[in-house]
Amino acid sequence: MDAIQTFEATTSPDQGPPRLAALRGAMAEAGLAGMLTPRADAWQGENVAPCDERLAWLTGFTGSAGFCAVLTDRAGIFIDGRYRVQVRQQVDPVFTPVHWPETGLADWLKEHCAPGAKIGFDPWLHTVREMRALRRDAPGIEFVATPHPIDGLWHDRPARPTAPAVPHPIEMSGQRSPDKRAACAEELEAAGVAQAVITLPDSICWLLNIRGADIPRTPTVQAFAVLHATGKVDLFIDPAKVADLGPDPDIAVHPFEAFEAYIATLEGPVRIDPVSAPSAVATALGAAGVRTVDGQDPCVLPKARKNPVELEGTRAAHHRDAVAMVEFLAWLDAQDPTTLSEIDVVRSLEGFRRATNALRDISFETISGAGPNGAIVHYRVTEESNRQLAKGELLLVDSGGQYVDGTTDITRTIALGTPPAGAVAAFTRVLRGMIALSRLRFPKGLAGRDIDAIARAPLWAAGQDYDHGTGHGVGSYLGVHEGPASISRRGTVRLDPGMILSNEPGYYREGAFGIRIENLIVVQEAAPIAGGDDRDMLDFETLTYVPIDTRLIDAGAMDAGERGWLNAYHTEVAARLEGRLSDRAAQWLVDAVKPI
Amino acid sequence: MDAIQTFEATTSPDQGPPRLAALRGAMAEAGLAGMLTPRADAWQGENVAPCDERLAWLTGFTGSAGFCAVLTDRAGIFIDGRYRVQVRQQVDPVFTPVHWPETGLADWLKEHCAPGAKIGFDPWLHTVREMRALRRDAPGIEFVATPHPIDGLWHDRPARPTAPAVPHPIEMSGQRSPDKRAACAEELEAAGVAQAVITLPDSICWLLNIRGADIPRTPTVQAFAVLHATGKVDLFIDPAKVADLGPDPDIAVHPFEAFEAYIATLEGPVRIDPVSAPSAVATALGAAGVRTVDGQDPCVLPKARKNPVELEGTRAAHHRDAVAMVEFLAWLDAQDPTTLSEIDVVRSLEGFRRATNALRDISFETISGAGPNGAIVHYRVTEESNRQLAKGELLLVDSGGQYVDGTTDITRTIALGTPPAGAVAAFTRVLRGMIALSRLRFPKGLAGRDIDAIARAPLWAAGQDYDHGTGHGVGSYLGVHEGPASISRRGTVRLDPGMILSNEPGYYREGAFGIRIENLIVVQEAAPIAGGDDRDMLDFETLTYVPIDTRLIDAGAMDAGERGWLNAYHTEVAARLEGRLSDRAAQWLVDAVKPI
Repeated sequence: MDAIQTFEATTSPDQGPPRLAALRGAMAEAGLAGMLTPRADAWQGENVAPCDERLAWLTGFTGSAGFCAVLTDRAGIFIDGRYRVQVRQQVDPVFTPVHWPETGLADWLKEHCAPGAKIGFDPWLHTVREMRALRRDAPGIEFVATPHPIDGLWHDRPARPTAPAVPHPIEMSGQRSPDKRAACAEELEAAGVAQAVITLPDSICWLLNIRGADIPRTPTVQAFAVLHATGKVDLFIDPAKVADLGPDPDIAVHPFEAFEAYIATLEGPVRIDPVSAPSAVATALGAAGVRTVDGQDPCVLPKARKNPVELEGTRAAHHRDAVAMVEFLAWLDAQDPTTLSEIDVVRSLEGFRRATNALRDISFETISGAGPNGAIVHYRVTEESNRQLAKGELLLVDSGGQYVDGTTDITRTIALGTPPAGAVAAFTRVLRGMIALSRLRFPKGLAGRDIDAIARAPLWAAGQDYDHGTGHGVGSYLGVHEGPASISRRGTVRLDPGMILSNEPGYYREGAFGIRIENLIVVQEAAPIAGGDDRDMLDFETLTYVPIDTRLIDAGAMDAGERGWLNAYHTEVAARLEGRLSDRAAQWLVDAVKPI
Repeated sequence: MDAIQTFEATTSPDQGPPRLAALRGAMAEAGLAGMLTPRADAWQGENVAPCDERLAWLTGFTGSAGFCAVLTDRAGIFIDGRYRVQVRQQVDPVFTPVHWPETGLADWLKEHCAPGAKIGFDPWLHTVREMRALRRDAPGIEFVATPHPIDGLWHDRPARPTAPAVPHPIEMSGQRSPDKRAACAEELEAAGVAQAVITLPDSICWLLNIRGADIPRTPTVQAFAVLHATGKVDLFIDPAKVADLGPDPDIAVHPFEAFEAYIATLEGPVRIDPVSAPSAVATALGAAGVRTVDGQDPCVLPKARKNPVELEGTRAAHHRDAVAMVEFLAWLDAQDPTTLSEIDVVRSLEGFRRATNALRDISFETISGAGPNGAIVHYRVTEESNRQLAKGELLLVDSGGQYVDGTTDITRTIALGTPPAGAVAAFTRVLRGMIALSRLRFPKGLAGRDIDAIARAPLWAAGQDYDHGTGHGVGSYLGVHEGPASISRRGTVRLDPGMILSNEPGYYREGAFGIRIENLIVVQEAAPIAGGDDRDMLDFETLTYVPIDTRLIDAGAMDAGERGWLNAYHTEVAARLEGRLSDRAAQWLVDAVKPI
């Protein structure tokens, strides 16, 4: 297997001005005063295929979120707090960075457009919810659905991905596709809808027990589907991708291009999920007079609640991944850090993961941030930003693997020599929050928002915090970021047994260091407790068993329960990895798991 | 001043059957298949005037929440978990108790009514939101607005209250009424509405800097108002109530009865708050073709954010109330508990409050629950339920006073002799949660929901919890329960400086004991902290300074920070009360505040 992660710049600021001019030419021909270009493709995921990198083609910006609004006299590139620096490096000043969401698109358009201005948008690239909000918030603007002009200007555009879909076996999925379809269909039936349009690739892959390779990092296929309340499925996909799968009497395969015409023939009522369905879906159904009902994609919740087979798989994947992580940490400690760069770290870690002979992909671009780069929350090292490690710094490494039995995501922060001032105190607070969440027992019925404070309280007490959620959902050999639940201020979905979440509090001191400690955890029914009441309560099983750097811990600032948790955790790490490590790593582990 | 709280049963189950028959007769005459009778009056508060006790008149049920739905062949009395026992004691079986909200009214009506059944409701007694939800959830039922038939059947109905409104002086309110009106008017102007209908009595009292005595426990006047975006007010009230207030050029006083006709003359758009506005308001505006906009009563948020003068007043009220509480606790400890009943406790405590010579009213019916009665969360002692205290029990006392400078609400749980098994461990957990919230520092922008877990986590860890919110808003010589913020799972309103909230975790062991510890706290800007980051954070100032029973504390189960907080709290109690207590209470306090 070849190396996965690359570090070259794939775009240049120079490309922007001529392409912007070309887009404006196309706008003028179409009578448009503006055109929207999102990072998103029709599937609304974090990763897109090279042929869908319209935003990067136009602007040079390669971040994972953002969009560009081109008017005749200005072009705004909207990026969030993660990308303020990157956008200036990658994008020519002919594009004006706009701080989003502080400035919303509707307000920006109202400020810079004449009333009644026609602004083009490709209705396959924007969700129903997004366009409803835009039209509500900018009622004076006329939004005009149009194929994206870039598709006609981009002459060396890569081909659409053609990777075949492969079966995801029952030994991994734990539930037959017909049974999943029947359960989801029953939910539709009960809700009084005849069909649901499903446009999320991971929903389709989960429902049909298939996986794909159309985009990097997430093993999904690009397709759309209609699930009927009868349990039958119409699948819209490049037929070559599923040719080897064998026929299923309840799945009708159609060319991808037939989707729009097909949905116009439905009797309805049809459920669409406004959060993920392209605006074009609602328009096509509306134009055909098909009644639609807003509702959640029926796969989203059952997909998030992993079954026992999926959980057993993810445990195996985490053990395998822990071996790679410990080999990496042992290797790192044996090096002189000054001889290593951030990229060397990424390559080494990926090498240990590939050495498992089970790695299908990394689950996202590894974050390897040394010293001040660790404080950039979504830092991705490139040849330009690459930094040599130095003693007296922290190194933050956030990474994960895609294995056929599970998806991993782990962050460890490592001391390179003597830690910088303030780092041990902050690391200990972050650890205390992470332990508090790991140990938490809580009543059934709560959402992530209701428990987010548990992980933050130790930092809050010191006047500190972190500007990201505490945890996101994680898929089962699917997206490393999976909805609908999260542990964050936006986490209003009830936490149910089987949901895999990350537990990753952090602390970032700009210009100095970044700290994050991340394990994956699973919601489970809590075992009864002596003296406890007869209440239905939940707690978490920890999936990730990799040492936490005790050189960064002030044990005196932890209480006995916290120290006890950490020592028991490290004992369990040693037990689980016994006999699976190289001699070097086994020897390193002896010290790494010593009680504090 | 006479005793305030009474304990006699004011209703009898016997009254129900003949009155139910009379109501059914009136329903038949009006062609109705059913009639709704809520506990609420037109002002939607917790307390109602005797003339508005329609639910009690009909059924005998005197609880603070509930409603009755009378059909021709059955009558459901809908009560929540607090009133399952009380309803059986107070109400004849001709009324069927319905567990609400587990069973909703819409579902119950759909089950028991023929399609198209005409169900009467008095549109002044149900809110806009309530009727919208009913019509949405029971589309097959025809809801018919009608004056309540009980008003014609209730021959010895008490007169409407006539208590005069009195000015609430600037030394207490801290802001002139014209300035409040101007600020609220500015908000309406910015929102593009011409008027707001204000139907909440505490909003009107806050806005006009007046107080009243129309209902028990809450010093408000019964009135409706229209605030114009010009800052002018039309006030609809019994003119005799405001005759002594003197004229204000910007306040036009109208007879209360003129309200409905007046609002039909408005140009609009008119803001109505669907949460509190009577359904009749929306109907009257709609029938007159006046455009309405849903929005929050403009007084609700500024009223909740107390200004420095109000906060200074509430501190004084809390000191005064603390004297009464400490005198009470000292008295109680000097008695042989077996000689006292729960009612004796209430009378004694009220006596100490009246002895301040500043008590205007109690802020709610004191909860005095001994032994198993303490586990009934909203227990209100009556002659029938009155229980003699006994050694080896806990006594839970939840009470408060209305003073012209502030409203108090405090719960203390007291050991009578050796505490029962499990009580010390549970009390210590409750206390740890209460301390954790008292000490919490948290980022600006959070709502109560985001921090509720902090007070519960110690109980959760032991498999325990409490089935009520952690904290409610409290008014400034207004309602002891005041919106819109709360610390609970339903608390989605942002916590802002100046908001007074209760901090009252508890634990209830059915048939054995109840524990609750309640202080009032105020949201404030947190002072900078050494080593803290440049983040806008909030914390709480404690208002309530009354000893917490250290005989119920397992100091070994608390960490040094928790013990330090408690000891510092008790030191502050002693400092604040020095020189204000009787000799007996001063002597008692010496022991009560000894460090643990």
